[in-house]
Amino acid sequence: MLGIGIDIGGTNTKLVVVNRAGKLIAQERFRTEAAKGVSDLVRRLAAAVAVFQRDYGRQLVSIGIGAAGDVDPQRGLLRFSPNLGWRSVRIAGPLEKLTGLPCVMENDANMAAWGAYELELGRKSGDILTLTLGTGIGSGLVLDGKLYHGANGSAGEAGHLKIEPGGRRCNCGARGCLEAYCGSYAIMARAGELIKDEAAFVRKFAAPGHEKFNTICLTNAAVAGHRAARQVWAETGHYLGMGLAGLILVLNPGCVVLTGGVSKARRWFLPAMEKVMGSQQIVTPFAKVKIKVSDNVDLGSHGAALFGLERTLK
Amino acid sequence: MLGIGIDIGGTNTKLVVVNRAGKLIAQERFRTEAAKGVSDLVRRLAAAVAVFQRDYGRQLVSIGIGAAGDVDPQRGLLRFSPNLGWRSVRIAGPLEKLTGLPCVMENDANMAAWGAYELELGRKSGDILTLTLGTGIGSGLVLDGKLYHGANGSAGEAGHLKIEPGGRRCNCGARGCLEAYCGSYAIMARAGELIKDEAAFVRKFAAPGHEKFNTICLTNAAVAGHRAARQVWAETGHYLGMGLAGLILVLNPGCVVLTGGVSKARRWFLPAMEKVMGSQQIVTPFAKVKIKVSDNVDLGSHGAALFGLERTLK
Repeated sequence: MLGIGIDIGGTNTKLVVVNRAGKLIAQERFRTEAAKGVSDLVRRLAAAVAVFQRDYGRQLVSIGIGAAGDVDPQRGLLRFSPNLGWRSVRIAGPLEKLTGLPCVMENDANMAAWGAYELELGRKSGDILTLTLGTGIGSGLVLDGKLYHGANGSAGEAGHLKIEPGGRRCNCGARGCLEAYCGSYAIMARAGELIKDEAAFVRKFAAPGHEKFNTICLTNAAVAGHRAARQVWAETGHYLGMGLAGLILVLNPGCVVLTGGVSKARRWFLPAMEKVMGSQQIVTPFAKVKIKVSDNVDLGSHGAALFGLERTLK
Repeated sequence: MLGIGIDIGGTNTKLVVVNRAGKLIAQERFRTEAAKGVSDLVRRLAAAVAVFQRDYGRQLVSIGIGAAGDVDPQRGLLRFSPNLGWRSVRIAGPLEKLTGLPCVMENDANMAAWGAYELELGRKSGDILTLTLGTGIGSGLVLDGKLYHGANGSAGEAGHLKIEPGGRRCNCGARGCLEAYCGSYAIMARAGELIKDEAAFVRKFAAPGHEKFNTICLTNAAVAGHRAARQVWAETGHYLGMGLAGLILVLNPGCVVLTGGVSKARRWFLPAMEKVMGSQQIVTPFAKVKIKVSDNVDLGSHGAALFGLERTLK
């Protein structure tokens, strides 16, 4: 029994075929090219699925999709995606028609949360909060072993929890959101304030062939002992701790999973994050929560495949 | 089939007998007198239950308890209650032994949340957040028709969500908690800053026989057009809106129920609260959420009785 998982991101779209244990059987990847429109993407997805169907036939039983944006999972509708530039587009229904496979669509962070639940925690922890730390911050909740959607499918917008009212401007337009401090664009904006000669910084710390002023570069600088880089990561950890403190108070999760590109810098932001969480007055929800950092970059696509299987087979 | 509900508060303890529809059949009330110790309270509770048992016999099938404090529902343990001055005391187990009735214990706000789910919403709305607005602010979550506990029973500590980091001092010891702005003690502290002659204010606005500088008095003043009183309520609504905005973002509830003494001033704080909620950048979770204010002062005790029945009969 195999499931197809699709992760539709602003730049790339990834398809995987996995078995129920989450083992990767096959994969495909192409540029999303959202500007060509949603019908074009659905056609290309169906073509890629057709290749999988040729190879794996009736072993394939489901498709799960994670899309970057505000998704209505009940209607298979992508309500709004700033990254894709789409509003109110249907993907799950049309793909189901073209492929003949049952298809569910969720927000990409929800699918990463499901992937964390299955692959990182072996379905063992009941109440899990997953934060995807990338350009923005997404989040998903698996409560009591079920993906939690809330009343209209948008539960878990933790990236926009206000941690500093009136504070830094977020990409969403509001001020003081967690994402405005801990999204990679915000981290690098802060780094830009402290690091005056960006070009020299990049020359010194970027990986060869990836000469960009980004969080990888900032992590390399921290490893090399660069004081401002370490300060930026410590500040990031402090703000992440503030956001997590609020989320843990309200949700009392058994486990918090951090994933996404920024989480690779764990060594540099975790101490400050844990300091904030350790200094809370209400201690019960913090007493037992486990913090897990996952380097699995495929939680989204694999989670989508496993979630599709879960829905279809249960 | 009847259930007993018990609400253990810092000052008073209330017992009710209700049927499955939540209809009140009998009630009893006495002073908690926590200083006499937990065994003494359990003995008095058992004596009151014995009277109910004499009157209603085997129609009584369960006891549900809501207690003010941090409760471990799985172990029937009151971990900590600042109001009662107790730490790590058992109530459910001993009462079960003395009465022969199955007994569940929960945080009092959780029981009010269950009461709201059954009595205010007729079990119709799936995901509900209830805030009890009293001296402090409690909260409870009924998600997907089930009371949500989180990993160790403390989910929903919404009163201590930080809405102004570094802001006003909360009773919990931290700064900037929602409760430090919208708990009645905080509201009256703010009123005290603006209203210089408290004695004259009380003489003018308190209900006869209840000459206290409290939120009832403040509401009466607002009704009478007192400018500072109206300002305090508007500020309260603003801060409550900030707290609710964060909670709604994360939880995406279909309904928020406000209850407790402070909610009686709804006319004076709701406009400012709704203004904050209406000005959010992420609109999906706010698009459909219903805000309901309940004047039912018995949601806690009735909710406890109904929750006990639910647990015993399911």
